[in-house]
Amino acid sequence: MLLPELRSQVLWANQEIARRGLAVHTFGNASGIDRAGLDGSGAEPIVAIKPSGVAYATMTPADLVLCNLNGIIIEGTLNPSSDLETHLLLYREFPQIGGVVHTHSEFATAWAQARKPIPCLGTTHADYFHGPIPITDSLTRAEVESAYVQNTGLVISRLFQEQSLDPMAVPGVLVAGHAPFAWGKTAAAAVEHADLLEYIARLAYRTVTLGAPSEGLATHVSEHHYQRKHGPKATYGQNLETKD
Amino acid sequence: MLLPELRSQVLWANQEIARRGLAVHTFGNASGIDRAGLDGSGAEPIVAIKPSGVAYATMTPADLVLCNLNGIIIEGTLNPSSDLETHLLLYREFPQIGGVVHTHSEFATAWAQARKPIPCLGTTHADYFHGPIPITDSLTRAEVESAYVQNTGLVISRLFQEQSLDPMAVPGVLVAGHAPFAWGKTAAAAVEHADLLEYIARLAYRTVTLGAPSEGLATHVSEHHYQRKHGPKATYGQNLETKD
Amino acid sequence: MLLPELRSQVLWANQEIARRGLAVHTFGNASGIDRAGLDGSGAEPIVAIKPSGVAYATMTPADLVLCNLNGIIIEGTLNPSSDLETHLLLYREFPQIGGVVHTHSEFATAWAQARKPIPCLGTTHADYFHGPIPITDSLTRAEVESAYVQNTGLVISRLFQEQSLDPMAVPGVLVAGHAPFAWGKTAAAAVEHADLLEYIARLAYRTVTLGAPSEGLATHVSEHHYQRKHGPKATYGQNLETKD
Amino acid sequence: MLLPELRSQVLWANQEIARRGLAVHTFGNASGIDRAGLDGSGAEPIVAIKPSGVAYATMTPADLVLCNLNGIIIEGTLNPSSDLETHLLLYREFPQIGGVVHTHSEFATAWAQARKPIPCLGTTHADYFHGPIPITDSLTRAEVESAYVQNTGLVISRLFQEQSLDPMAVPGVLVAGHAPFAWGKTAAAAVEHADLLEYIARLAYRTVTLGAPSEGLATHVSEHHYQRKHGPKATYGQNLETKD
Repeated sequence: MLLPELRSQVLWANQEIARRGLAVHTFGNASGIDRAGLDGSGAEPIVAIKPSGVAYATMTPADLVLCNLNGIIIEGTLNPSSDLETHLLLYREFPQIGGVVHTHSEFATAWAQARKPIPCLGTTHADYFHGPIPITDSLTRAEVESAYVQNTGLVISRLFQEQSLDPMAVPGVLVAGHAPFAWGKTAAAAVEHADLLEYIARLAYRTVTLGAPSEGLATHVSEHHYQRKHGPKATYGQNLETKD
Repeated sequence: MLLPELRSQVLWANQEIARRGLAVHTFGNASGIDRAGLDGSGAEPIVAIKPSGVAYATMTPADLVLCNLNGIIIEGTLNPSSDLETHLLLYREFPQIGGVVHTHSEFATAWAQARKPIPCLGTTHADYFHGPIPITDSLTRAEVESAYVQNTGLVISRLFQEQSLDPMAVPGVLVAGHAPFAWGKTAAAAVEHADLLEYIARLAYRTVTLGAPSEGLATHVSEHHYQRKHGPKATYGQNLETKD
Repeated sequence: MLLPELRSQVLWANQEIARRGLAVHTFGNASGIDRAGLDGSGAEPIVAIKPSGVAYATMTPADLVLCNLNGIIIEGTLNPSSDLETHLLLYREFPQIGGVVHTHSEFATAWAQARKPIPCLGTTHADYFHGPIPITDSLTRAEVESAYVQNTGLVISRLFQEQSLDPMAVPGVLVAGHAPFAWGKTAAAAVEHADLLEYIARLAYRTVTLGAPSEGLATHVSEHHYQRKHGPKATYGQNLETKD
Repeated sequence: MLLPELRSQVLWANQEIARRGLAVHTFGNASGIDRAGLDGSGAEPIVAIKPSGVAYATMTPADLVLCNLNGIIIEGTLNPSSDLETHLLLYREFPQIGGVVHTHSEFATAWAQARKPIPCLGTTHADYFHGPIPITDSLTRAEVESAYVQNTGLVISRLFQEQSLDPMAVPGVLVAGHAPFAWGKTAAAAVEHADLLEYIARLAYRTVTLGAPSEGLATHVSEHHYQRKHGPKATYGQNLETKD
């Protein structure tokens, strides 16, 4: 079995999204990438992804599907997640990321369905996402009818390019009328960001339905919070990416 | 004991609606049908349904009530669910279905009480229900005063006829001022649809209270999602009806 | 130890409101009454009530406080619940009831704080409460400053008298700016009604925030539902007060 | 190891905020103070606080950080919580308090993000907080850029001074655009107040979204409730601060 460590991490990530209540009805999948690849040269990075339609609880490392960045299966007898092409496009466009998570979690999906970015309303948001959590354009008829799954990734990368967003500073997005995607340096970091995105979406829902101030959080506060966690002088934790 | 396999499936379905949190205060019942019947001829299909007022946890296969499509008890000493006549009408009118589930689950019931169909606002909905989740007319005084329970089924089948809906493509409905009914090829599929209907209702509630776009999801997206899961070229799972 | 059976029922009821999540932060208490009294004559009914400030989990039958309808302690070394006088007034004014439960459960309390009766919006409500769940007047300054706890009961009984409500058909109420009280033939029935009141309040909250139809449920439906469960021709259960 | 009793109480408080669901994603920290200090003279009170970025479940008493009121570490090898300076300012300004808790709990944070005080809408609130739960000013750019964490404490103490609030009667606050802080005589009391603040915020959210009466609870009711629990003639419990 190739890449047992990557398989193990990706299995954990898939099971963790279920344990955290983010994968309602098995709507959810995680992948990870080994950018060095089998020969360590970096010429052919390898992605490990959840098989389609297999229960989280009984999934084993051997059930995961390994493929290259063009989707050619390297190892695995099961069909990969039907969202594979979105994951691959994100890995190709965002070379810094090592893991991707997709869920239909309740509050993030509600914002995606309402087709609204999540404004930065408080420090919880500012600690983890630099600026609003953006929302893609709706896919056009042409984008849906040809290569729909890949085009879902394309509208994400296009959005980040057009708005000059750094995927490491904005580690997640809402796909309009669909649901969130999140990512990070590893599959585990992608799960953490998917979970934070859901909690930030939940807080923003409560705030907006209470009547939020239209101007959002002042930039001097949000910048300070973001930089003290992620800037060169970050002051959190015991050299861990944790806030208390 | 007749039809032990059907009894076993229907018992599981009743207990599963409780396990999934859909049967608050024992408001909920599941049934299944063996259309071949005892002699295998199809002349007299047999329905198995929950007895009225028996706790899910202690229910046994023998507690279920067997009857024919006219409600004549074939086997069983307990009273059948008081909703029996609604189930029977649905089995008579929708010959493709093999299981029916009724719940008072929180968000689906809220939409039923608000007397609004659930608009298709995202791909989670489009993956499982073809178009909005419809709502029946309110029952008239005459429909309530005579054969109320059967007439609850009648307003459902009339709605599907008038709107030319396919019960296999729209596997559930809201009864105005009451609560949801869902169905499927088997009792287990009916439970799954009742649970999906509740999650879709929950997402739609969150979306609408955030301020949903009035036009809903574009048809080219919803059609694509529905067809890739249910059309002739479905691409999900390992030949299973599962999405990841 | 006097009246062990009554003590046992009231202990169960107090622990059950905690188990059902109705007694957040120990805001909640249950009592029961033995109307025959110690000598069986009915001359001095005895009430058993939760002691004040004792944890549900470790409470024993001996911790309960027994008193007569004037609040004279018959047996018990702990202080009774500070809401005792409300319970006693309800037992004096509503001779049909055998148990009282008070909680600060989330949705019922929200309606009480919003000072609105809960309109009958669906059959879940109609099955258990005959008409809207009413709300009391706010207590006047004079009612608060003298015998506040007893006057909380008084505004309830006055409301039922003025609106000609039957406490057996409307087994609960909202006290304006405070929280719900519920009751029933026994302490166990009072718990059941407190729990149903909370679920009905939750459904009504969801419905109203979705945009409820202003006319509520048609009377011909609500009457039919109420009567088929509570009228002389009730058709539910195996001679049990259960709905499926 | 110094001050084992204080360490033990503060460890319990940190773990309790996690157990009560108040410390989502480890956003939360508790501290306690021994005002007598190591030599019992009161000349140098000692604060024990959560280390930054350590999981609640595996934290031990030895992991806690001890420091004086100027933040000089007395004992401990881990970094203290990044919110330490806020805790210290509160201990310096509010000499009656013995414990401080900070969380990002869902409903209290939503009110903080909406930048609204929580009005007193019912007796649940009046029992524990004397008047509205106040909200601070937003921090200015200057306050953020220099000594931000300490200034978070400063805007709290300034608010209490300007509005002549008694921190023992109002044992918590919302920091605008951030989240709640709560406190009490001990670390355990601070946890209890953080939890009550969250439930009061939840009830108020439900009430306001239902359409709350603009005038709030009448003062003659809220005063009566507050005084019967906290005034010289308090009538609750068995000499315990518990309500039933």
